[in-house]
Amino acid sequence: MEIEIKFRVDFEDIRRKIEELGASFVREEVQEDLYFSLPLPNLLRVRRIVNLGKAFLTYKFIKDPGKNEEFDELEVEVSDFDTTAEILKRLGFNEDVWVKKRRLVYRLGDVTFELNDVEGLGAFLDIEVMSDDVEYAKRRIWEIAKKLGLSEKDVEPRLYQELLKEKAEKK
Amino acid sequence: MEIEIKFRVDFEDIRRKIEELGASFVREEVQEDLYFSLPLPNLLRVRRIVNLGKAFLTYKFIKDPGKNEEFDELEVEVSDFDTTAEILKRLGFNEDVWVKKRRLVYRLGDVTFELNDVEGLGAFLDIEVMSDDVEYAKRRIWEIAKKLGLSEKDVEPRLYQELLKEKAEKK
Repeated sequence: MEIEIKFRVDFEDIRRKIEELGASFVREEVQEDLYFSLPLPNLLRVRRIVNLGKAFLTYKFIKDPGKNEEFDELEVEVSDFDTTAEILKRLGFNEDVWVKKRRLVYRLGDVTFELNDVEGLGAFLDIEVMSDDVEYAKRRIWEIAKKLGLSEKDVEPRLYQELLKEKAEKK
Repeated sequence: MEIEIKFRVDFEDIRRKIEELGASFVREEVQEDLYFSLPLPNLLRVRRIVNLGKAFLTYKFIKDPGKNEEFDELEVEVSDFDTTAEILKRLGFNEDVWVKKRRLVYRLGDVTFELNDVEGLGAFLDIEVMSDDVEYAKRRIWEIAKKLGLSEKDVEPRLYQELLKEKAEKK
């Protein structure tokens, strides 16, 4: 299972702190995610990683809806973004929202850092641990978060697509 | 668009005739197709090509239901068969029927020959032309079919999954 906690951060400040922790830089990804309308706690998305020329089909099931820290994830790489999106449309799913971001990935032991600059929303850090032991994973995430100077008040429980929709509604 | 006509054949006899026509052998595929329940004229399938270690997600729309010669096809290669099938199940699609076959692919100009030995059903030849000109494609298919000694009485309009279900019901 994928356990992750999302924090609102200052991109350059937190990047420096992650590097000071000794985490290794893994890769940069320019992601364009197309979410399809599916009732929560299910998520269905096709992701294009523009700079790597890759695409992925992903289904997620949120195990703790509202908190959005525990996910069952099923993902396959696909040979073509547009065709995959078109197949989903033919199957009756509707385009819901696009999430576009620049992501830097770092790793430190079993912890993955996904530092995101999300178009229209700003910077967020996902600290992620893959584990079936939720207790352990969260303890580990918070241990690292504290070292980065992050606390409960920095947590953003809402999904990017929810934040984008809220923003669009306010306009 | 994919235009194809399916004929019941004798595997070795028709293979020899295809080779005598001068068609070039393209590849052999051992295919395991899992169809998901979706109302006709829509088809949804995940294909595993066992001998090549590849998998594909395919949606087809039958443009001439019942006759089953004209298809709009959308297909992507996927990195994992099982995960793709699991994603479809999570999206609410149910496993319908497995079609397993050994396929020899030949090509002659714009004509593709798919000679199939289908588990439980026997041998079939699909003669296929990719074209948006249905008239031209069918004329071309019949021109080749006649050279192979095939006629209207050899045509099998039913889908493999329909034939397999009919067989299962007769038991």
